[in-house]
Amino acid sequence: MLPQALNNVIDALGMLPGVGPRTAERYAYYLFRSNPKVAGNIADTLANLHTQVKFCPVTFALIDANDDVSQLYTDPGRDKTTILVVEEPLDIYAIEQTRGYKGTYHVLGGAISPIDGVTPEQLHIQELIKRIDDDNAREVIIATNPSVEGESTALLLEKLLHEKYPELNLTRLARGLPLGVDLSYADQITLSAALENRTQL
Amino acid sequence: MLPQALNNVIDALGMLPGVGPRTAERYAYYLFRSNPKVAGNIADTLANLHTQVKFCPVTFALIDANDDVSQLYTDPGRDKTTILVVEEPLDIYAIEQTRGYKGTYHVLGGAISPIDGVTPEQLHIQELIKRIDDDNAREVIIATNPSVEGESTALLLEKLLHEKYPELNLTRLARGLPLGVDLSYADQITLSAALENRTQL
Repeated sequence: MLPQALNNVIDALGMLPGVGPRTAERYAYYLFRSNPKVAGNIADTLANLHTQVKFCPVTFALIDANDDVSQLYTDPGRDKTTILVVEEPLDIYAIEQTRGYKGTYHVLGGAISPIDGVTPEQLHIQELIKRIDDDNAREVIIATNPSVEGESTALLLEKLLHEKYPELNLTRLARGLPLGVDLSYADQITLSAALENRTQL
Repeated sequence: MLPQALNNVIDALGMLPGVGPRTAERYAYYLFRSNPKVAGNIADTLANLHTQVKFCPVTFALIDANDDVSQLYTDPGRDKTTILVVEEPLDIYAIEQTRGYKGTYHVLGGAISPIDGVTPEQLHIQELIKRIDDDNAREVIIATNPSVEGESTALLLEKLLHEKYPELNLTRLARGLPLGVDLSYADQITLSAALENRTQL
């Protein structure tokens, strides 16, 4: 029904996460109507994605292929004895935007998920242990997502690190009310956590 | 903060309609984690989008660049004396999927919108009039969107065509309750239309 070349674009864009046929059609038609440079720019940038981006072999953050190690690790202003552990590389940039953290990061590369076949062995946990040893880490901040998978991963790390490093200061991001959410709309678990972890005025 | 090549992909994908920075990041990271073929396929298909797709010069549907005129027009099984008028080419495929229409289509190329600077002169209205003359059209079905812009465009076409072709059968798509929407959730205008246009049992 549609021209083949347009269908090909729709199929290709439909591979993106959360993009269904209608959205892919909208994207494809938008690109067709736009200056060819817009589509050309997407094609050009994609050509460099896999050759010019890689994972940092120490922190597993995303880094420029020309760099050896993440600058968030090599920067001498960063406290290597504090390691904040996240699931995915993009989580780092959410934390960085708070401008309130001066330690280093460690990316697990996911969270334990039996359904998706993600086992603890597939996460960068051994590399975290190596870093705790190498950098004499004093604090590990667990910042996995507040999901079932993130909670399981946090519990596993807690157990593992508590046993192996009894002296290590092991912390987690606080639970509480997010900004702008009405008390009456907050879920029960969040509200319980906010009450339990109430702060002294 | 992020590798430049990744930022470039995020910026490029951020040009797609409705895609904000977070969504663009998610797409880019997904593509980075996926087989490079997925990104390569998007790049390859985009390269052909503008060279292999064009507008039909008669109906303004999207057609293969090798075709002269839309097959939905040239097909002898199609009744050229009935013309269904839509705003955008993709609307055609929504109607085609009903498998209940055997006339031809005409794409206006948008709807009147003073805010977006779309005037009646920019729409393919003169080409519609030429088709009504050339094909001795007997019915024109106006199928613009139920938006302020679509309604304005429908009113303009109604006025214009009624004056110019008093004999022409001018119709619009019916208003009423969509499938699966509870009566109590239907908006006032839809419900008024459903009541006014009630059908005899």
